[in-house]
Amino acid sequence: MDGKLEVNGDVNDEKQNHRPATIAAPTNPMVTPLLNDLYQFTMAYAYWKAGKHNERAVFDLYFRKNPFGGEYTVFAGLEECIRFIANFSISKEEIAFLREILPPTCEDGFFDYLQGIDCSDVEVYAIPEGSVVFPKIPLMRVEGPVAVVQLLETPYVNLINYASLVTTNAARHRFVAGKSKLLLEFGLRRAQGPDGGISASRYCYMGGFDATSNCAAGKIFGIPLRGTHSHAFVSSFMGPDEILEKSLKSHDGSRICEDFLSAVQTWLSKLKRLSILKGVFGDTNQSELAAFVSYALAFPDNFLALVDTYDVMKSGVPNFCAVALALNDLGYKARGIRLDSGDLAYLSCETRKFFQTIENEFGIPGFGKTGITASNDLNEETLDALNKQGHEVDAFGIGTYLVTCYAQAALGCVFKLVEINNQPRIKLSEDVSKVSIPCKKRSFRLYGKEGYPLLDIMSGENELPPKASERILCRHPFNESKRAFVVPQRVEELMKCYWTGNADKKREELPTLEENKERCAEHLDQMRPDHMRRLNPTPYKVSVTAKLYDFIHFLWLNEAPVGELQ
Amino acid sequence: MDGKLEVNGDVNDEKQNHRPATIAAPTNPMVTPLLNDLYQFTMAYAYWKAGKHNERAVFDLYFRKNPFGGEYTVFAGLEECIRFIANFSISKEEIAFLREILPPTCEDGFFDYLQGIDCSDVEVYAIPEGSVVFPKIPLMRVEGPVAVVQLLETPYVNLINYASLVTTNAARHRFVAGKSKLLLEFGLRRAQGPDGGISASRYCYMGGFDATSNCAAGKIFGIPLRGTHSHAFVSSFMGPDEILEKSLKSHDGSRICEDFLSAVQTWLSKLKRLSILKGVFGDTNQSELAAFVSYALAFPDNFLALVDTYDVMKSGVPNFCAVALALNDLGYKARGIRLDSGDLAYLSCETRKFFQTIENEFGIPGFGKTGITASNDLNEETLDALNKQGHEVDAFGIGTYLVTCYAQAALGCVFKLVEINNQPRIKLSEDVSKVSIPCKKRSFRLYGKEGYPLLDIMSGENELPPKASERILCRHPFNESKRAFVVPQRVEELMKCYWTGNADKKREELPTLEENKERCAEHLDQMRPDHMRRLNPTPYKVSVTAKLYDFIHFLWLNEAPVGELQ
Repeated sequence: MDGKLEVNGDVNDEKQNHRPATIAAPTNPMVTPLLNDLYQFTMAYAYWKAGKHNERAVFDLYFRKNPFGGEYTVFAGLEECIRFIANFSISKEEIAFLREILPPTCEDGFFDYLQGIDCSDVEVYAIPEGSVVFPKIPLMRVEGPVAVVQLLETPYVNLINYASLVTTNAARHRFVAGKSKLLLEFGLRRAQGPDGGISASRYCYMGGFDATSNCAAGKIFGIPLRGTHSHAFVSSFMGPDEILEKSLKSHDGSRICEDFLSAVQTWLSKLKRLSILKGVFGDTNQSELAAFVSYALAFPDNFLALVDTYDVMKSGVPNFCAVALALNDLGYKARGIRLDSGDLAYLSCETRKFFQTIENEFGIPGFGKTGITASNDLNEETLDALNKQGHEVDAFGIGTYLVTCYAQAALGCVFKLVEINNQPRIKLSEDVSKVSIPCKKRSFRLYGKEGYPLLDIMSGENELPPKASERILCRHPFNESKRAFVVPQRVEELMKCYWTGNADKKREELPTLEENKERCAEHLDQMRPDHMRRLNPTPYKVSVTAKLYDFIHFLWLNEAPVGELQ
Repeated sequence: MDGKLEVNGDVNDEKQNHRPATIAAPTNPMVTPLLNDLYQFTMAYAYWKAGKHNERAVFDLYFRKNPFGGEYTVFAGLEECIRFIANFSISKEEIAFLREILPPTCEDGFFDYLQGIDCSDVEVYAIPEGSVVFPKIPLMRVEGPVAVVQLLETPYVNLINYASLVTTNAARHRFVAGKSKLLLEFGLRRAQGPDGGISASRYCYMGGFDATSNCAAGKIFGIPLRGTHSHAFVSSFMGPDEILEKSLKSHDGSRICEDFLSAVQTWLSKLKRLSILKGVFGDTNQSELAAFVSYALAFPDNFLALVDTYDVMKSGVPNFCAVALALNDLGYKARGIRLDSGDLAYLSCETRKFFQTIENEFGIPGFGKTGITASNDLNEETLDALNKQGHEVDAFGIGTYLVTCYAQAALGCVFKLVEINNQPRIKLSEDVSKVSIPCKKRSFRLYGKEGYPLLDIMSGENELPPKASERILCRHPFNESKRAFVVPQRVEELMKCYWTGNADKKREELPTLEENKERCAEHLDQMRPDHMRRLNPTPYKVSVTAKLYDFIHFLWLNEAPVGELQ
């Protein structure tokens, strides 16, 4: 790709150009054309009534500000948008409902028109899902009959907003946790509704998580699943008397331990007698011990215990170790513990010491490295604090703060008309950051000598694209004085065509979730570190060509009414 | 109800006791038993393997802290929970998936067991949906075979958490806006996924909103719909030349205005010539005028215009008024304007003055009261600020901050085991606020002489319930020194039975959304004002009986391991 411009449709790949019928319906069956703001339908009527409904319009979908105080965003949700458009059709029942809610003066012909709408006249250009993206640069450009494209606005913004927000949040958590840690998404119960939960699992995986607890997401998207037991499991046991079936076959199947409970109790006594552990614990909670033994009997190969139901160091960890040691005698390797409360830095370090003591005292290689998972209201800040304090956690289970994007619960994606009938349109505002960038545009990422992206630039559709090794003037879209000459080492066009309607064009295949996850990781790796840091990151530059700059300002002056001050 | 205790099942009403088959499936088809954390299934296996799966367990669903810095919460989501349990069944396909993801050592008998699970042995008691509720008091009490009830945990917490959070948020917005204002939920595009949007619309309506923009929610739940047009509609017009069909029949059908556009332009000239408006505006934006005229031609009875695409006072408002005046000549009454940017307090007041000037100058009764709707990132704080500044807004369209619960994106509902095989269970924690309150409990709201709720109290199941006019000692569950004698004027039991399984008991009907909305409004009205105020509200007291208090602390000491300090 170096030194070569990548242009949409120029890539001569072997992939088959699938036609609409082959694209599955949206994952959530509630995503239908009626998942829409009423005004999209009232506008559709007004366009139709004015005979404007088939005017060719171009809309840009973009956001204005990176979330979470950062300087980057990960784009996600595209696949669902393409699934939506590929299956767009307003059902008879939906038409009947629209008839009810629109004024009775609306003419019949309009409902016939609605019934016939599909998206065969629409084209969707988009940045690939999983890409790192920046404010103002169109994530998607949607072209087609104005009334039809308006009907896509609300579903598209809904499908992109949260997906991109939570993917970005996941990426940020991965960034702080570091690459070596296992990150588990545990957010289903705190997510904003069932779909919030399912989307969260999918997009957190895309943004860098390793697994989820959400079985539905595992089934639908093939995401690895993780999970063991809760406090309720532990407290459901009254004591060891409840364990009736106590035998356990060894891992290699060669022998049977007839009383696994006794084996565990023997180990617990041995631990108690260790002088090096004197004072660490006394009598452990016996209902907890029973719960651990039962869980180990059910999952001898996957024994991971939640150790904080009663007391981590005085009960949970010693009980766990007794079970793990009895399992070890039978050739099983315990997975580890989970901490869900308290001072995670301190408790993880104490637990590690306990594990290492056992490794040393009993000569059990690797026991010191037994896994420690931490959960309990973790977020970017707590991960960062744990890193600074020092900790021994191997895996983090993260829920509430991750999936609800607690630190910033919404990304403000908008969908703005930028051209109609080949005429560029602008939306003004007293707040300059809300002025839209008019024209059907292309956008490019310019890379520098060191391989980092330098900046993104938008140009009018018909301008010559920037070229590698050629100097180009890049201007801030609204600030006259901010501009720079750039000689890019490499130029990459950002948007590709994902939906062609009936047009005879090449369409990009929808990548798999795994491919999007890889793209995300690659893009994040590729960024210059100062854009990525948590504290005072450097803004990534977003610019327009000189020609587009002039045009924006010409149009602005043209549309703004002139006041008459007195 | 005064002076009389309301006990579950005692109410001898005429309602038919519907059986499971009559309860519809969850609104979102993605809500299935697999919408669950993996550990619910691994625990189910461990329970089954230990022969414990049918032990009778009692779980409480509750939250620990009111959201948004307030001192109350509105309970919502119950109907979906009952729909879920009434239709609970794990499909063959889901079983096959569980077989894949669980370790191969899991025995076949377990999967047969899963296949056969329904909720006929489960009972659900709950506080009615739409009630004002408080921390620690069980919102739901779920009893049944431990393995089955565990499988309800994640879906239930998911269905209650966001529903209650967003209903509470809506109630808080209603509180600040006051009863006379129209509140419109416009959040679909910023909601956390499609279901987040649909749930938000439903529960915001329950919490006190009047209408939504979300057509799907309108269709599914019968919520009134509102919406007109966006900036894109305005900027899609280039100028008045585009308007080809210009005739408009008068409201009473008696005459036709052949050139409505000219009528509007004539009015605009008249407005411009008014000396009292001199300097307010000059030439207005003509593409905006064309858009307004087109919209009025499509919806002469429902003309509401978004006036800030170019400039509110210099263009949007004068253009709107010209159209509204031309409509008025034909017997139509314009609905009003929408402001979506800028200083809403100032602009609404200026617009009101403009409207009143027209009423006075042209003698058009009621024109001064033409509606003003405001949108643009509104929340509790901005509503409060608008109130303090003074404004002329009649209706608020609220989106992002409302539906994503931006100020606090999650409510921490939990689901804790409180009893198994008639043995009370407790979950300890180093953080006292996280210690669970054991025992199968009942809870009561005690009312004072002035009709306000005084406090809520929990008792053990078999204690005699509190009685009106009888003194009762109410104790803080964890703080020894906090206690008070109360003589309630009236006592109300909080939980009713909403799911009986096969048990021959009376079950509460699920109320309609309208009924829940009414209950919510009544409950909010009934609260003592100091619990409701935004700044430093007084906490509402939540207590336990003396007997339950003693029992909690007995159990606590019993379960906590004794340390051995050196």
